[in-house]
Amino acid sequence: MDTKNSSTHYAKHVVVNSALFSEWYLQVLKDAELADYAPVKGCMVIRPYAYSIWELIQSELDSKIKAQGVRNAYFPLFIPEHFITKEKKHVEGFSPELAVVTHAGGEELEEPLVVRPTSETMVYYMFEKWIKSHKDLPLKINQWANVVRWEKRTKPFLRTSEFLWQEGHTAHGSEEEAFAFAQTILDLYVSFLRDFLAIPVISGFKPESEKFAGAKYTFTMEPIMQDGKALQVGTSHLLESSFPKAFDIFYQDSDKQLKTPWCTSWGVTTRLIGAVIMVHGDLETGLVLPPKIAPYQVSVIPIRKTSDDRTLFDSFLEKILKQLETSGLRYVLFDDETSPGKRFNESEKKGIPLRIEFGMRDVLSLQVVLVPRLAIPNQDKKIFVPIDSFLQESKETLKHFQNFLLARATDFLQKNTFLVSSFEELKNHLDHNPGFYEVFWCQGSPCENLVKSVQCSFRVKLEKTLDVSDNCFVCQEKASCKIIVAKSY
Amino acid sequence: MDTKNSSTHYAKHVVVNSALFSEWYLQVLKDAELADYAPVKGCMVIRPYAYSIWELIQSELDSKIKAQGVRNAYFPLFIPEHFITKEKKHVEGFSPELAVVTHAGGEELEEPLVVRPTSETMVYYMFEKWIKSHKDLPLKINQWANVVRWEKRTKPFLRTSEFLWQEGHTAHGSEEEAFAFAQTILDLYVSFLRDFLAIPVISGFKPESEKFAGAKYTFTMEPIMQDGKALQVGTSHLLESSFPKAFDIFYQDSDKQLKTPWCTSWGVTTRLIGAVIMVHGDLETGLVLPPKIAPYQVSVIPIRKTSDDRTLFDSFLEKILKQLETSGLRYVLFDDETSPGKRFNESEKKGIPLRIEFGMRDVLSLQVVLVPRLAIPNQDKKIFVPIDSFLQESKETLKHFQNFLLARATDFLQKNTFLVSSFEELKNHLDHNPGFYEVFWCQGSPCENLVKSVQCSFRVKLEKTLDVSDNCFVCQEKASCKIIVAKSY
Repeated sequence: MDTKNSSTHYAKHVVVNSALFSEWYLQVLKDAELADYAPVKGCMVIRPYAYSIWELIQSELDSKIKAQGVRNAYFPLFIPEHFITKEKKHVEGFSPELAVVTHAGGEELEEPLVVRPTSETMVYYMFEKWIKSHKDLPLKINQWANVVRWEKRTKPFLRTSEFLWQEGHTAHGSEEEAFAFAQTILDLYVSFLRDFLAIPVISGFKPESEKFAGAKYTFTMEPIMQDGKALQVGTSHLLESSFPKAFDIFYQDSDKQLKTPWCTSWGVTTRLIGAVIMVHGDLETGLVLPPKIAPYQVSVIPIRKTSDDRTLFDSFLEKILKQLETSGLRYVLFDDETSPGKRFNESEKKGIPLRIEFGMRDVLSLQVVLVPRLAIPNQDKKIFVPIDSFLQESKETLKHFQNFLLARATDFLQKNTFLVSSFEELKNHLDHNPGFYEVFWCQGSPCENLVKSVQCSFRVKLEKTLDVSDNCFVCQEKASCKIIVAKSY
Repeated sequence: MDTKNSSTHYAKHVVVNSALFSEWYLQVLKDAELADYAPVKGCMVIRPYAYSIWELIQSELDSKIKAQGVRNAYFPLFIPEHFITKEKKHVEGFSPELAVVTHAGGEELEEPLVVRPTSETMVYYMFEKWIKSHKDLPLKINQWANVVRWEKRTKPFLRTSEFLWQEGHTAHGSEEEAFAFAQTILDLYVSFLRDFLAIPVISGFKPESEKFAGAKYTFTMEPIMQDGKALQVGTSHLLESSFPKAFDIFYQDSDKQLKTPWCTSWGVTTRLIGAVIMVHGDLETGLVLPPKIAPYQVSVIPIRKTSDDRTLFDSFLEKILKQLETSGLRYVLFDDETSPGKRFNESEKKGIPLRIEFGMRDVLSLQVVLVPRLAIPNQDKKIFVPIDSFLQESKETLKHFQNFLLARATDFLQKNTFLVSSFEELKNHLDHNPGFYEVFWCQGSPCENLVKSVQCSFRVKLEKTLDVSDNCFVCQEKASCKIIVAKSY
């Protein structure tokens, strides 16, 4: 058991039962009006509230990606079937998941069209036309699009047959440069999750068996969910040189030689919304959103009584709203006939980070009450602030709340990561301490298969210089890497 | 022949040959690196430069749409085949254009899935779940998505089997409200085209035969292209009540009665990019972009000689760039070893509205030269401005250029719109004065068929109270509307 000290006490660091957590998750989707199942098996409808979250994610991530010299473009949805078969590993990896168009315009097609599961093949077909000289490199392209991977067992945002994502595709003049760029993007993703979604991740290489179909190296990043499982939320790949070669991409280098560029691809998906729900959500009260991606950062809830001076009260409310309007804060007013409790509940269900409430007594005292969605350690649950400074205080509190969510999630990750030195110990932990397990591994398949037999997998390699005494936790032979083992989504 | 006077003389108001114009169009797509044909029949790749234009269109239009209380969401790509058949006219209209997925995940599907040609059916399936009470109305949803309509004859941006668009879908408590909203959106589109894309349109109702499959009324907006043809660039529909009824959408009204809401749908597509190319492009020098949607509004072209004082020159350039950096203007620097002429040409090919150039003489005079992409009437072709005011002057010139493009296009539309009072006259005009023809029409099919026999169609009804003497230009019987006849894309 991890015994790291933490100066702050966070209420929730105990892993919850996976089945209950799954039920809770589906209930949150419903209560917060985030997603519905579609009438097509395995597909979802992203409702406006969740789509607003996606737009905030897109906007921030898009500018970070563009700052890397990447330009957006759009490639076709349909890929000729024979494209997919050009790269051997790629076809093996994706074949079982493909949706195929066989008829169009009332006729059977000569060649079936695959609905893109990812666009490397289509992008490389175009790269072959666009890349002629070393002066055309690096070429950095991204697209925001829908993709389809036919899935048997689905859950909105986490695994659906159609999902939205961004997929980046770049070509470089050397393996070193491409590798460095794949890593740059991983770092970009990791800092985006930390600074924007308040989600800490474990990041690093995937083991051989878990790489993208056609990749030489796959970087991954994986946060821990409240049921102790890992969720892969983004990957960045250096592709095998066989991949661009299969599409005859060549350029003339400055030394006049014809060479094949090195390519990367990388993406994050609407799964990020699922990660936000599962990392920050409250098991009793539902959705909790980090301020930076909350469609509404603030809810305003006036509490009137019939005996109140309506004119006085409403002019106070007016003042509040007017200031919010120009504040840059995203806010919503809950002001109907229903009880304050019902409206508090509405605000809570939507995961709104901060509630601003006030009754007649507050109006007369020229103050409002700030109530964060969850109590922030070392802060009052309710913060009384004068109307003159409520904007400033609201912004401060939102900043604290964002930091608190990250600190709490980091604490949870640390407290539920365990050093494990034998397979027996792993099995023991699985029952009593679900979570992430740091192990040494020989990278052999027999040991991997044993791990899989207990529904775990090798998730992320950790950076670590090995000692001679570091042995595989399964076979106890010499280890070749340190790596995280976990159950996963 | 129209003889309206115009105080300004615009060089280009003569309609060009359609075949030549078509060749020119394809050449512009290539020269400006806007689009490529994809390896799938009828599909295109939107290259980064054109995609930037689309992003600027999206950003502006999205905020205008949201200002109407519309929220973005995302609905699935795949629609169960039987959904499409629920509304009789809808299935008749779209059946010939559908792409169909019959296999997925390695198995034949029990029911084929249609790749959405438009999403009314899927949206209404969800509306049935979301709309219960009059309090749920109006419900206003939009999505930015790809759609597929299998086309035989295609041209990038104008007609492709897959394209990008926004599709809005709303439900209202009364026909009047829905009708008014469909019109509000049309107005929004029209002002967006005028104020942002500098494109004037004729807008109004479609005749019966040209309505959207399932609509009671279809509003359209159509600008004239330089070959005199109309291009339908956006539509807004009030749907037949049979459409929501087919999906069992009911709500309880305040009078406790169960009622069916009235629905609208409306959209614009990547075709807008084609419209911009064809309305503003220069037949000799290629692409011309209105400043508001130009990915680069300004190109900076320093003209150095080897004898120039490099330090002095570069510190001047540095100053220019530094000011541009914080100006809010989108700019690009063309500064390589190639000749100024080659770089001017590069800037021209990309349709960049304003070129800022300077040589050593300008550096010493502390000035730069502003050169608009096309000469603006009543202004110098080259504008010499002191470095201290070049930002201000650039912004002013861009504003004039935007206005000039709109004025020129408006002039072109006016000069190529002809009043026609007989079918003979129409045929005559077709040969000598290709363009838009204002006619009176009885709205009878025989007259319409005759018009179709000369490759024309009825495009947009004009608002006009008819006189008793207004007779159908074909049959000369009593007319029931005034309408634009034209050839079209």
